[in-house]
Amino acid sequence: MPAKLRINKLVVIGVGLIGGSFALALKKARMVKQVVGVGRSRSNLQAALRRGVIDHAEKDVVRAVADADLILVGAPVGQMPDIFARIAPALPPGAVITDAGSTKQDVIAAARQHLGACFPQFVPAHPIAGTENSGANAAFPELFRDRNLILVPQPETRAAAVRLVRAAWLACGARIVRLEAAEHDEIFGAVSHLPHIVAYALVNQLAQHPDARRLFGFSGGGLRDTVRIAGSSPEMWRDICMANRAALVPLVDGYINELAVARTALVAGDGAALEKLFTSARQARARWLVKRG
Amino acid sequence: MPAKLRINKLVVIGVGLIGGSFALALKKARMVKQVVGVGRSRSNLQAALRRGVIDHAEKDVVRAVADADLILVGAPVGQMPDIFARIAPALPPGAVITDAGSTKQDVIAAARQHLGACFPQFVPAHPIAGTENSGANAAFPELFRDRNLILVPQPETRAAAVRLVRAAWLACGARIVRLEAAEHDEIFGAVSHLPHIVAYALVNQLAQHPDARRLFGFSGGGLRDTVRIAGSSPEMWRDICMANRAALVPLVDGYINELAVARTALVAGDGAALEKLFTSARQARARWLVKRG
Repeated sequence: MPAKLRINKLVVIGVGLIGGSFALALKKARMVKQVVGVGRSRSNLQAALRRGVIDHAEKDVVRAVADADLILVGAPVGQMPDIFARIAPALPPGAVITDAGSTKQDVIAAARQHLGACFPQFVPAHPIAGTENSGANAAFPELFRDRNLILVPQPETRAAAVRLVRAAWLACGARIVRLEAAEHDEIFGAVSHLPHIVAYALVNQLAQHPDARRLFGFSGGGLRDTVRIAGSSPEMWRDICMANRAALVPLVDGYINELAVARTALVAGDGAALEKLFTSARQARARWLVKRG
Repeated sequence: MPAKLRINKLVVIGVGLIGGSFALALKKARMVKQVVGVGRSRSNLQAALRRGVIDHAEKDVVRAVADADLILVGAPVGQMPDIFARIAPALPPGAVITDAGSTKQDVIAAARQHLGACFPQFVPAHPIAGTENSGANAAFPELFRDRNLILVPQPETRAAAVRLVRAAWLACGARIVRLEAAEHDEIFGAVSHLPHIVAYALVNQLAQHPDARRLFGFSGGGLRDTVRIAGSSPEMWRDICMANRAALVPLVDGYINELAVARTALVAGDGAALEKLFTSARQARARWLVKRG
């Protein structure tokens, strides 16, 4: 890994929370000279310019990637096939492409298909960070500090490209972890995608109450935390859940089954069974989740 | 309401997070002279003494309530029938009893049955506050500040008893709200009891993974917040869910149905339907939950 890595031109396609925070972190680390942002929303790009997240906004993705050293695709995963297809003919031979998609098997398949000969320049990655807020206004340079960055290099991926992406994320403060794509999608289906389904469904269930406003008015911190991630971008999570539905459907089934077990205990008036369920959950949480950053 | 309310002897039965915080808040407000704590756990009572939550620990609940002005039953709701039966013969005629139970129909029925002639001295109540931590060590005097205190007085309840309990909770910084018992149980079944079932079930589902330790190791803030309340006391929540199961079972059914709707969209590859679900949840959360204390 180069001791002093310098990126002359970073292109961020999709200047949201992740792409914007990546740009800010690399600027703060003085690793990047110029950041060009590409996006669909004019107002979001203007916010990114105003906040110094990007130095230039560019509407045309083909023009944007000219002379790029590093390109981060931070758009929802459903848009990536199209983005790959459009940038492929314009990619400089030395440019490195990476992504921040929450699913990896579909993104890698799309990149293999649409980047074609440039596929070895692509380093699949997924930063495990985020908040329920989205857009350039939500970006901040410390977002990735001490967070995992999952790197999923493929057999074809150029070693130098992996080194550049690794160095960039290390400069953001992230910890690098390598995973296989299928393993990644199974793990994050369980710890991230399923919880989003759980939270969205709970809000929808309560919102159906005839006096939902009053109902929510009585809620406390428990409900608020449980459904915090139901504030996440519907488009982004639609894409993630659709891309990973092969892993997600059995997880939803398993979860419905867990609820059915609790329901059976309730209907039977079996307090001991219910307490056993609650105790095992509490112990698992204490063992594996408490005090994690 | 008396301008300067003084409680000579407060008895807290169950010196946990709620009972302990109530004692600390009244001490801080200089509204109480002496606090006697009763509980099953010797080590918890010793912690309460050490932290100044209580002034005396008493093993015998009958001895404890002698000369009491105010008695807060802060024990899990499943224990309340027995506690009411034991204190009924020993209650001073002027003593006021209140509770902090998360369900109200069952607690009121138990009080009516077991307190007998003393039932008019009982003021059913429920402070909407808590954390996932329990025990006297978790207590702090600000727990109830700006939180709702649900008051559920019955036709028989003495007006003076209601005034005392009201004044005590106001001194803790709580906002007083009156509800009917059935209404209370329906509302909190939805915004509190169901979310606990949801969180406990999600942890149990993930904990069944063959490599659960590694799985949880990859989780981020989303999962952590979603299942925070799975750290809550299994005994307390067993009692609450059992007491309120008539309201809770249909809520669990409705929630399973919401999950099934999402599952159908996933299986059908219907991204538009999924996005619609996520969007309506996000909007409901933004409208009703964001910026609430």
